[in-house]
Amino acid sequence: MHLNALKTLTIAVAFGYPLLGATAATIRPAAELPARASVADVVKASKPSDWRALDPANTLYMETPAGRVVIELAPQFAPKHVANIKALVAEQYYDGLAITRAQDNWVVQWGDPDEKNPKPIRHAQRTLPGEFTVPMQSITSFTRLPDADGYAPQVGHSNGFASARDPESGTAWLTHCYGTVGVGRDVASDSGGGTELYAVIGQSPRHLDRDITVVGRVVSGMPLLSTLPRGAGPMGFYDSPDKNVPIKSIRLAQDVPEAERSRLEVMRTDSAAYQAVLDAQRNRGGPWSKVAAGHIDVCNAPIPVREVGK
Amino acid sequence: MHLNALKTLTIAVAFGYPLLGATAATIRPAAELPARASVADVVKASKPSDWRALDPANTLYMETPAGRVVIELAPQFAPKHVANIKALVAEQYYDGLAITRAQDNWVVQWGDPDEKNPKPIRHAQRTLPGEFTVPMQSITSFTRLPDADGYAPQVGHSNGFASARDPESGTAWLTHCYGTVGVGRDVASDSGGGTELYAVIGQSPRHLDRDITVVGRVVSGMPLLSTLPRGAGPMGFYDSPDKNVPIKSIRLAQDVPEAERSRLEVMRTDSAAYQAVLDAQRNRGGPWSKVAAGHIDVCNAPIPVREVGK
Repeated sequence: MHLNALKTLTIAVAFGYPLLGATAATIRPAAELPARASVADVVKASKPSDWRALDPANTLYMETPAGRVVIELAPQFAPKHVANIKALVAEQYYDGLAITRAQDNWVVQWGDPDEKNPKPIRHAQRTLPGEFTVPMQSITSFTRLPDADGYAPQVGHSNGFASARDPESGTAWLTHCYGTVGVGRDVASDSGGGTELYAVIGQSPRHLDRDITVVGRVVSGMPLLSTLPRGAGPMGFYDSPDKNVPIKSIRLAQDVPEAERSRLEVMRTDSAAYQAVLDAQRNRGGPWSKVAAGHIDVCNAPIPVREVGK
Repeated sequence: MHLNALKTLTIAVAFGYPLLGATAATIRPAAELPARASVADVVKASKPSDWRALDPANTLYMETPAGRVVIELAPQFAPKHVANIKALVAEQYYDGLAITRAQDNWVVQWGDPDEKNPKPIRHAQRTLPGEFTVPMQSITSFTRLPDADGYAPQVGHSNGFASARDPESGTAWLTHCYGTVGVGRDVASDSGGGTELYAVIGQSPRHLDRDITVVGRVVSGMPLLSTLPRGAGPMGFYDSPDKNVPIKSIRLAQDVPEAERSRLEVMRTDSAAYQAVLDAQRNRGGPWSKVAAGHIDVCNAPIPVREVGK
């Protein structure tokens, strides 16, 4: 049995993506907000120039048993770590390692499950000084949100990444949002290097901002991480090795034959179309919505991704 | 092979819950923040009077194939809907229905999977006027956060629930955070009644605040919802009935034999201990943390829950 028409209608309107034509008959006069373009409408109306393809030199494919997770790297925000992660990928360091941790409303983490006999590193670095912030002037693109933020003086987007900056200290950083990928470390600032990586799978842990090196974000495949069984050990680590989720490989897109690449495009966050996306999310129109939020949190700003040819 | 000592160390400090004693030897002089009590420390030091047991008259047990999800209802914020949900529970309306939707970074939703032949309702109401806000003066407990919020003039906690209020309009409401439970509805404000419920499984969708009736929050069992396979249909609905996750039953705790009840306690959000929790989260100390956030988002404020006797 497939969902029937009524169900489809309920689906469509349940969270503010109304099928306007189909539901017009049921609209009550009480609906006060005028109809406005939704995020989906804006995406649909966008032009090819509002999008950019992922750069194969800065895109990782993590192949898990359930499928591919695509990570876009942000070299501007963590140049040394991104270079080191690419070096680790080049020597196939991650292949055969595992996802060892899944903590609910927090992170999924992967790396070497065997710290007694750690996998040797041939050319890359095991640790690096943290890149928790970068000089503000090194970030050439920043489209600031007008919305206030409690964690940073300014928030916005830098070439497809949610980011923040502080003019007083002259620093910029990537903000921890759903899907953000960062570098696990120990107590010392220079104790991480990319051998352990994590992705955020819950409420944005913004209190980690500037405390850890962020290297990018998951642009496709989040459900492969977010649905993993939560670990029963302390802090969500799996409590036995057979629960670890093997990583078949992590490859740079440019090293994968073109026919096997994921053909993804990201909406340019410095485009007018993206400003329209933000505005559609900030002030949703009727008839479903009754109150316009008038505000957007940087981690609630959707960054549209699409698969070319679909 | 179990996690060895080194791994445990890495686990403990990877996200700011340092084992102070164990890691002291590795602390670099560069660590600038003084050590402070962590959330875990505050919870450990709390007194019995800082906690309250869940009220069996306002606690739901949703029994799923993987286990029990415990939901605390908030009658002060949605008196008619909470009464109606209890009426639905009393006539065992939910038993045999299903979780029909799991949309990544959004919600899990449950209700009647067969809208062609909807399950009859005997005594409860199918729909009710929305309770999107309540009069501010009807909320007797509100401990305000000093932190600014973009979505509401004031945010804080009301007896264990993240909430907001607007003195100008004299209204109060529950905020949409991870684990928040609300009432699905159609376009019309009065088209929901509790037959379809959802729980937030991702970034707090605060733009839904005041647009939908919120009835409570999941206090235990979130991973049973958050790890469900995401639906392949539009908006995360499962695309065939065999993918629906059956609900064995939903019961009010007071109707369950005492021996079978979950013995949970929630930290009182009007206690000094909870203020210490907030402060520990707002300004985390060294040696792991290098920067204190100085801010807490209402949806990043952990509300401790513990199982009595564990």
